[in-house]
Amino acid sequence: MQPKSSNGARPIGVFDSGVGGLTVFREIARALPREPLVYLGDSARVPYGTKSPATVLRYAREAAQHLVARGVKMLVIACNTATAAALPTLQQELSIPVIGVVEPGARAAVQHTSGVVGVIATEGTVRAKAYTHAIRAIDPDVEVIESAAPLFVPLAEEGWANTHVAREVAEIYLEPLIDAGIDTLVLGCTHYPILRGTIEQVVGGAVAIVDSAETTAETVRRALGASAGMSDPPHQFLVTDAEERFRRIAGEFLEHEIEHLEIVTLS
Amino acid sequence: MQPKSSNGARPIGVFDSGVGGLTVFREIARALPREPLVYLGDSARVPYGTKSPATVLRYAREAAQHLVARGVKMLVIACNTATAAALPTLQQELSIPVIGVVEPGARAAVQHTSGVVGVIATEGTVRAKAYTHAIRAIDPDVEVIESAAPLFVPLAEEGWANTHVAREVAEIYLEPLIDAGIDTLVLGCTHYPILRGTIEQVVGGAVAIVDSAETTAETVRRALGASAGMSDPPHQFLVTDAEERFRRIAGEFLEHEIEHLEIVTLS
Repeated sequence: MQPKSSNGARPIGVFDSGVGGLTVFREIARALPREPLVYLGDSARVPYGTKSPATVLRYAREAAQHLVARGVKMLVIACNTATAAALPTLQQELSIPVIGVVEPGARAAVQHTSGVVGVIATEGTVRAKAYTHAIRAIDPDVEVIESAAPLFVPLAEEGWANTHVAREVAEIYLEPLIDAGIDTLVLGCTHYPILRGTIEQVVGGAVAIVDSAETTAETVRRALGASAGMSDPPHQFLVTDAEERFRRIAGEFLEHEIEHLEIVTLS
Repeated sequence: MQPKSSNGARPIGVFDSGVGGLTVFREIARALPREPLVYLGDSARVPYGTKSPATVLRYAREAAQHLVARGVKMLVIACNTATAAALPTLQQELSIPVIGVVEPGARAAVQHTSGVVGVIATEGTVRAKAYTHAIRAIDPDVEVIESAAPLFVPLAEEGWANTHVAREVAEIYLEPLIDAGIDTLVLGCTHYPILRGTIEQVVGGAVAIVDSAETTAETVRRALGASAGMSDPPHQFLVTDAEERFRRIAGEFLEHEIEHLEIVTLS
């Protein structure tokens, strides 16, 4: 039997298709400042949003196996598309707790809404109706309108989040939801919080924004329970390709230098 | 020894990261209407433009091996990023002719220009300075300005080619090239011809547009020499993922139904 303290030193694994999951990583690091985290971005195969559920499941399984082999004590799937395609399977297959981003977002949406929830997400997440199922499981009376917003991912990835172009794209995606009378909007892709300012300008103050990064971090904090932790834990970053691109984007987003960055092969 | 006529029945392989290479496929089919073609789109790992040269080389090699195993008599790398990363290696490793899209585009640019060529391409192609090297190898006096235009790929993929948003993005990407005095613009990514109308509106009639799809098809026609050919040859399409998405986009682009579509695994 391992000594009790060893569990505290084992990191939490956070997995995403690329850089979008850093929004979840950041909230977990804020909520649990004494926990070491290991972030895996599958940059060789990003994006997942337009790929089939079977392919996304295969990729998620490979990522999970890699993180488990590194001794993570919990796995967070910080990608909506991968959560929609792989969460139940990974929860069955792995012996550690596995947390996705859809259910926490759905719970927060139900708390905020007085009737009509809008969800913007990738093509894959919308096709799976992941949020509709999760929200209706909590409250069958809530109306859910899901809509794909695929151009938000490259706009975020290219650093165009606060441009006039992003504003115009946001208007095209969001106006049908506003016209449908939503009172709550779920940012159903971990890239989208990067465009939050622009999205808020378009939907206005009357629509509550649910960012599943925050609610997922809260879920992780509760699931973990007590933890030995450590002061100033060393976070680690793994990518499957283009590490210099990741170093630049992650460094800007997290506002500190990315020290422990490693390139790994999944398969 | 195989009978001579069997070479005529062997298809030409056309490889791309996704749907962009269909612009090249279409021009080859027009230039060589009696040749069977087999198109392979690596939709499970699209896009290539932001990935490292080593990873793109690995993917291109896997695709080439798959097509060679299917008996292609020639390989066309219908993707600028893959051409920049893999052409010399594949030309060395394979026993069939291998043609890329960069050199034909560079030759056409030198024919059109009176001094300053602009090139828009993916991050990977620009970083490799693929067009600068290819153009300077033909005429060292030509000035070449390469600029990345990454958002053009998702705009084309999402069917937003002729929108106001695409026009605004095109202005942001192209105005620095226009101000630098280019007289010729190379569309250095096989997705970009899908946005040709919008690009032409922005650069105006004084700038010649070089679409490497046309020039590559001409190179293929010359390299092939005489061919037995067949009337109404059966083209085949292979993808690594999301075949229904490919069927829809390819059908719209080629303006006919995609009959022989197969999903394959590369590795």
